Amino acid sequence: MILVFTGNGKGKTTAAIGQAIRVLGGGGKVLMIQFIKGPWVSGEHLFMEKFSIPSSRFSIKRTGKGFVGILGDKFPLSEHKKSARKGLEFAANAVKSKKYDLIILDEINNAVGLKLVKEADVLKIIRSAPAKTDMILTGRNAPESFIRIADIVTEMKEVKHIFQKNKRSTKKGIEY
Amino acid sequence: MILVFTGNGKGKTTAAIGQAIRVLGGGGKVLMIQFIKGPWVSGEHLFMEKFSIPSSRFSIKRTGKGFVGILGDKFPLSEHKKSARKGLEFAANAVKSKKYDLIILDEINNAVGLKLVKEADVLKIIRSAPAKTDMILTGRNAPESFIRIADIVTEMKEVKHIFQKNKRSTKKGIEY
Repeated sequence: MILVFTGNGKGKTTAAIGQAIRVLGGGGKVLMIQFIKGPWVSGEHLFMEKFSIPSSRFSIKRTGKGFVGILGDKFPLSEHKKSARKGLEFAANAVKSKKYDLIILDEINNAVGLKLVKEADVLKIIRSAPAKTDMILTGRNAPESFIRIADIVTEMKEVKHIFQKNKRSTKKGIEY
Repeated sequence: MILVFTGNGKGKTTAAIGQAIRVLGGGGKVLMIQFIKGPWVSGEHLFMEKFSIPSSRFSIKRTGKGFVGILGDKFPLSEHKKSARKGLEFAANAVKSKKYDLIILDEINNAVGLKLVKEADVLKIIRSAPAKTDMILTGRNAPESFIRIADIVTEMKEVKHIFQKNKRSTKKGIEY
C-alpha cells in the first residue's frame, strides 16, 4: 500500500510517525528516510533514545542538509542534490532488501519539487517495492504521478495557524 | 496550544499519536482519551506493550463502546452517551491535575457531532487547560467553536482512497 500525505498543513510527518508506531506495534519493521531535514535531533529521535527503541525495528536515516534555498542555507544546490540522491539510493536498497514493512520517504515530495531528485527515479523505487512493504510519501505539493500510484492520499490542509509569539509556540515537541 | 485535526481523510489520530511520540521524546507526559473507539486493541496499544512504554509517561484511556449507530452497534445511544461523558469527566480531571504536557481527546469532534457530549462541556475543559498542557482534538466535522479556540487547525482531506479487496487493505497496522 502506498500512502501520500501532502498539503500545506501540520500533520504530514507526524502522521507518518504515528503510522510507524502502529506498524511497530503489529511487529513490523520501519525505516524512515528524512530528505530535506537537516542533521538536527527531533522529538522522534529523542523518543527512540529515551525508550530504547532498537534501530533494527525503527530506523531513522537523516540524509538532508537542512531547508533548501532559505535564509541560513549554507549549502549550494549541488550539495543538497548530492544528499538527496544519497537518500534515494538508500531507499532503493532498503526496498530491495525486503526487510521493511513500512518505508517512509519523509519530505520526498518537496525534494522532487525542489528538483533535488527526479520524479521518475522515485517512481521506480515505489514500483519496485515488494508486496510486504508499505510506503508513505510526505511533503507539500505531491507530484501528480505519486497521487496516481498511491492507494491513499490525504491532503493536510492548513485551516488556521496562529503563531503565538512569546507564548508557547516554540515549545519543544509541538513545533519546528 | 490547542490543535485540531479534522476532515474526512486518513491521518487525524495517527498525527496525534506522532505528536505524542515527539512530546514523549522531549520528556513530556501524554494522555490520550479515545472517545467512540471501542475496547479493541490497536497498533498503538501493542506498541506500548511491546516496547514497555510506561503508562506514567503515555497513557491511553479507552472510554468508547465502538462505532455509534452503525450495523453491529449493540448499544443504545444512552450507553454511548454514558461512556463519552465518563471520558469527558476523566479529561476534566486530567486537565485539573496539571500532570500532562499533552492531552489528546481522540474523536471528540465526532462525539460532539453525535451528541454524545455537549460542545460547551468540552470547551469548558479546553479553556481550563493550564499553560503547560497542550491539547489535540481529533475527528471529523470539528465544531466551529473548536476551530475558533484552536491555535492550529489542519483539515485532513481525503484526495484518494482505494479499498484494495483481497489485497493488502486489511493489513495490520495500516488500516482500520
